[in-house]
Amino acid sequence: MIPDRGVMSNAYAVIMAGGRGERFWPLSTDLVPKPFLPLLGPKSLIQQTVDRLQPLIPSERILISIGEAHRQIAGMQLPQVPEGNFIVEPVGRDTAACLGYCALHLEGREQDGIMVAIPADHYVGDDVAYRSTLEKGLGALPGANGVVFGIHPTRPETGYGYIQVTDPAGRDALPVLRFVEKPSVARAAQYLASGDYFWNSGIFLWANRTLLQLIRMHMPEMDRGLASLRPLLGQKERRAELYGAFAALPRISIDFGVMEKTSGLRLVPASFAWDDIGNWGALERALPADPDGNVACGEHTALDSSGCITYSDAGPITTFGTSNLIVVQANGQVLVCDKNRAADLKRLLASLKPTS
Amino acid sequence: MIPDRGVMSNAYAVIMAGGRGERFWPLSTDLVPKPFLPLLGPKSLIQQTVDRLQPLIPSERILISIGEAHRQIAGMQLPQVPEGNFIVEPVGRDTAACLGYCALHLEGREQDGIMVAIPADHYVGDDVAYRSTLEKGLGALPGANGVVFGIHPTRPETGYGYIQVTDPAGRDALPVLRFVEKPSVARAAQYLASGDYFWNSGIFLWANRTLLQLIRMHMPEMDRGLASLRPLLGQKERRAELYGAFAALPRISIDFGVMEKTSGLRLVPASFAWDDIGNWGALERALPADPDGNVACGEHTALDSSGCITYSDAGPITTFGTSNLIVVQANGQVLVCDKNRAADLKRLLASLKPTS
Repeated sequence: MIPDRGVMSNAYAVIMAGGRGERFWPLSTDLVPKPFLPLLGPKSLIQQTVDRLQPLIPSERILISIGEAHRQIAGMQLPQVPEGNFIVEPVGRDTAACLGYCALHLEGREQDGIMVAIPADHYVGDDVAYRSTLEKGLGALPGANGVVFGIHPTRPETGYGYIQVTDPAGRDALPVLRFVEKPSVARAAQYLASGDYFWNSGIFLWANRTLLQLIRMHMPEMDRGLASLRPLLGQKERRAELYGAFAALPRISIDFGVMEKTSGLRLVPASFAWDDIGNWGALERALPADPDGNVACGEHTALDSSGCITYSDAGPITTFGTSNLIVVQANGQVLVCDKNRAADLKRLLASLKPTS
Repeated sequence: MIPDRGVMSNAYAVIMAGGRGERFWPLSTDLVPKPFLPLLGPKSLIQQTVDRLQPLIPSERILISIGEAHRQIAGMQLPQVPEGNFIVEPVGRDTAACLGYCALHLEGREQDGIMVAIPADHYVGDDVAYRSTLEKGLGALPGANGVVFGIHPTRPETGYGYIQVTDPAGRDALPVLRFVEKPSVARAAQYLASGDYFWNSGIFLWANRTLLQLIRMHMPEMDRGLASLRPLLGQKERRAELYGAFAALPRISIDFGVMEKTSGLRLVPASFAWDDIGNWGALERALPADPDGNVACGEHTALDSSGCITYSDAGPITTFGTSNLIVVQANGQVLVCDKNRAADLKRLLASLKPTS
């Protein structure tokens, strides 16, 4: 029998650890992508995510969705997670396929399971508030088709999706009006001013059965694909068949495929600082700064320097007379980047790599 | 018999390889100071200096003045220089003591020797023109108390000493009027405009006997010190005595102690690009630049970057959206420095090191 250390013994977390994190080059690589990097301290983002969850959802009920290439590093970083909880995707097919596939696993395990879907690589400023927010979400689920977690916007961010609610002054769970894609700056400023928009944290929860129903309703192709996968689960001798069927799933996000089309969703506002750690620039929102606004992961000496972000997996970094730079020493490479260009790092990488 | 591959078989070079080069931190260290660093290519500055001289003055007549701590690295880098040509200073006592001590060695070797004193760590843009300039200097020595080599100034540099001549339009060897110390910017601009000032390259030549006479005339304390050293030379069992006597020599530069007070000097204008490579910023005057004005020693990729100087003794450096930075990866450390602060690096070091 699985011990129940947290609330609601049918609540399962699915931690989504796909994605390549190219914007954290030269630290991130195809072999060790963003979730497995110790970006915000000695533990990796996925280790922090599991640690943060465990008092609420024990590791026995934490499923880790990962690509095949990262099965080994995930197992090494998360020894407390049982072998059978690593759900390996043969190939990345975005979050709708990821969560649909996890829902198949979960239905075989727990008839009335609840799935809390959580990205593996976000910053959370207050673990206690985070768990209490998730508990509120679990409490708000009965009678809803799903619960989403929203972040009070603090700037006109154009890198996040937004969620509009109908009653922003309501308590705990607010009725969702609509999901909106990443907006323009002008639109983001409107959202910020209006007060009824939240950032989409990418954290969702549903009854597992409801999630599969929503996929059936809004994504018939995905539903058929999942139906073809169901009899292949756990059958090692039919592995090639399973891989082929998985690769045929449509590549689409759960937001676009399901959430934007679903009525009856509730939003629970997060009561913690949050960031999706989208690029090196995010570190200054997630790490403590010195009096000149420099943040560092690894040894850094700053003289006449301000607003710099430094990261080293090797020796010390010294900045002298510089401002608003990102300096990274990792994997034997050095990157020096204007802070305002952090989000463009994919462009840099494209120019570094030979076209294939 | 020593083979004579060059002109004037009594001409000896003394390469002065003292100095700590703190402005090349984190590459330079007490163990491997500036002359021994490969700053301008695969060979170190002192190796380049010896290579540049050899067609004119063979290595058998090249003396290397070094500190005790650098005897080993000097021997490794300069295998072509005979063992007995390394003149080891027990302790650094500036250039007057250095050259006076070398003059004692040379007088025991060659009665009518000529000494060409050359700093070990300068950039020279054209080796052939360099040797032809030195040959002109050797030709200009008869009838003069010494010959100095002057560089046509190209900017109002405040980091160099200047030498004024009386007949700047003269050919080959110009009568020296006076030496002047490092000037203010305003004064440097005047010197630049006047046309009769040259930068002091720190390269001098004298008859060895004349040098010792000039020391006797202008630096009686140094002369007495050298006299006390003379009987101790080459006597291993009196090493401690020699060290003590050397340490008692006054600490003063040859420019200040002798040259500024000496009449009858001639200046030969250099016909080659030159830089004293005083700090990281000098690399952009000595290395070829890309179309955006970036110079690199080691692998560098620049995207939307201009005017950057990069140096790596390890992996690649990438700059993205930055300008006018110095980026150094060396000895496991990374330095990122505004280009205008390169000359202040000693201040940075002072703040890094615990006061002793």
